[in-house]
Amino acid sequence: MSRRDAYAEAGVDLDVNARMKAGLADAVASTTTNLVAVGFGSFGGAISLPPGYRDPVLVSSVDGVGTKLHLAIEWGRPGAAGRDLVNHGLNDVAVLNARPLAFLDYIASGELEADTVAALVEGMAEACRAAGVALIGGETAQMPDTYRAGAYDLAGTMIGVAERSALPHPERVQRGDVVVGLPSLGLHTNGYSLARRTAARLGPEYPVGGSTLADALLAPHRSYLAELAAAFAISGVRAAAHITGGGLPENVPRVLPAQLGARVEVDSWKVPEIFGVIAADQDVSAREMYRVFNMGVGMAIIVAADAADELLVAVPGSFAAGHIIDRGGEAVMLAGL
Amino acid sequence: MSRRDAYAEAGVDLDVNARMKAGLADAVASTTTNLVAVGFGSFGGAISLPPGYRDPVLVSSVDGVGTKLHLAIEWGRPGAAGRDLVNHGLNDVAVLNARPLAFLDYIASGELEADTVAALVEGMAEACRAAGVALIGGETAQMPDTYRAGAYDLAGTMIGVAERSALPHPERVQRGDVVVGLPSLGLHTNGYSLARRTAARLGPEYPVGGSTLADALLAPHRSYLAELAAAFAISGVRAAAHITGGGLPENVPRVLPAQLGARVEVDSWKVPEIFGVIAADQDVSAREMYRVFNMGVGMAIIVAADAADELLVAVPGSFAAGHIIDRGGEAVMLAGL
Repeated sequence: MSRRDAYAEAGVDLDVNARMKAGLADAVASTTTNLVAVGFGSFGGAISLPPGYRDPVLVSSVDGVGTKLHLAIEWGRPGAAGRDLVNHGLNDVAVLNARPLAFLDYIASGELEADTVAALVEGMAEACRAAGVALIGGETAQMPDTYRAGAYDLAGTMIGVAERSALPHPERVQRGDVVVGLPSLGLHTNGYSLARRTAARLGPEYPVGGSTLADALLAPHRSYLAELAAAFAISGVRAAAHITGGGLPENVPRVLPAQLGARVEVDSWKVPEIFGVIAADQDVSAREMYRVFNMGVGMAIIVAADAADELLVAVPGSFAAGHIIDRGGEAVMLAGL
Repeated sequence: MSRRDAYAEAGVDLDVNARMKAGLADAVASTTTNLVAVGFGSFGGAISLPPGYRDPVLVSSVDGVGTKLHLAIEWGRPGAAGRDLVNHGLNDVAVLNARPLAFLDYIASGELEADTVAALVEGMAEACRAAGVALIGGETAQMPDTYRAGAYDLAGTMIGVAERSALPHPERVQRGDVVVGLPSLGLHTNGYSLARRTAARLGPEYPVGGSTLADALLAPHRSYLAELAAAFAISGVRAAAHITGGGLPENVPRVLPAQLGARVEVDSWKVPEIFGVIAADQDVSAREMYRVFNMGVGMAIIVAADAADELLVAVPGSFAAGHIIDRGGEAVMLAGL
């Protein structure tokens, strides 16, 4: 006798997959914008370019949220990881002065659990709605031999459009330019392989600066969409660097000419308490902390010295964090560490 | 004493990551097209629209390769999975009559092994070059607590552009239209959770139709880019369906109006031998086989009856596989099963 359910026995239930996709329709539909030409459910999603671009350039970026996803699921807030994935992508296209238009996600696990998938998608949809971005495609995969029991992975691609003449000019960065920082809300989505050790040791209720470890570690990966739009309206702004894995030392140089470096004054902003908790708990050196975490700076903008004040006024919360120098032994010198 | 290598101990080696990325530069650079405005290594990749579009629409799709990746790595051909991922994406945008422009990939594992990552990326780059697509972004992630030992996952997003007036017209599909099939080269990237059981039982050298099980199961996911471009040049062509997970029964209805179905004559093409090997080895019913696998039809094109002959001539290898009928109990009736 032949088995009709051979594929389900092999770990893939097509009926569950179909039902789950139907259940996500509302969240996805909530992100529809007037630019959507072919929506979710087709083989490809299609979106129009907004009017008014003379020489449009497509800007896109793919990201994951790393193991923050583990913690978000373990501590009952999977939606936080969905939101963070979208915000990460928003920032990656916004640093090229692009307007984000569309997002596509990939969710995989050994066994997809409908409530978790729904929460992930709702988290993504919420962040998409806030940014006027349409969720136009997604893929879910069940792979029991790939993923550890209960583990998920989540990745996504943001697509935006920029005016070619308005792309940033990192090649114009010069000695004396100012590095302006924008505060992060915590770890954003980097350093969780380490942070989760602290989470496991101290637990979600451990007090961190008037709040809890759960709130500190699941704080949003902040979107800097509005701030970057305001910044790039200022003519002296050269470039922006999203401070993700590798921290200031690895991300700021991505927008610097090879012969230039940055001197960052680490006492020019307040490092959120969560970083001190992790450093103490895991006995990590300050130098390593700055290489793994954003340490309170989620975005760095390079601006001509004579336009720095205009930028600092235009973007509330921003602060002068350092300046551009000739490159020394290290591309980013952390002064005061 | 503080530890400088705390993050490496937690399973993430930033130095290895940086070195690996540098090593991939050549493969990525080989895909550069004259449309690339900001290449790999920036926060976002940027690409120009090709000239000549009056009302351009962006078309994108995200895909994985499922557990074919396991087999490709286990049997020493990881590049095959990279190639297949790109071809899958090419087909998903090409069914909307879009020209593919750019690709972004996501590679994750518990521990990224440099040779495997290089082979995956080279496989993607090769397929990108063949299609004139630029690899403009990528993300790698090491997550030991997420992935089983030695396991990888791979996903990617294809971005293309279509002329709005040239988008397909599934809403124009009508009773009497012809379903034209294009042959697949085997399983493509679907059904591997089941096929891997056969792989494990019979081994890579097991003979399949003059070749081996390894060659049959790692045969390419074919790109139908040229075939679809030729097809959409014919005015009676309404729509095309990429036959992936769910087979003909789930994918053909994605381009049919709700009241219409398809009658497919399953004896109108030759089913590749590999499907018979799996069905016999795993004792799977014919009905289930058609629901899990493409069974030899990788693409289905719906065309007006009076244009079918023109299509069959324009696309070598294509065959009349059935026609459009009023929808009955099932959207796709497999006649002759």
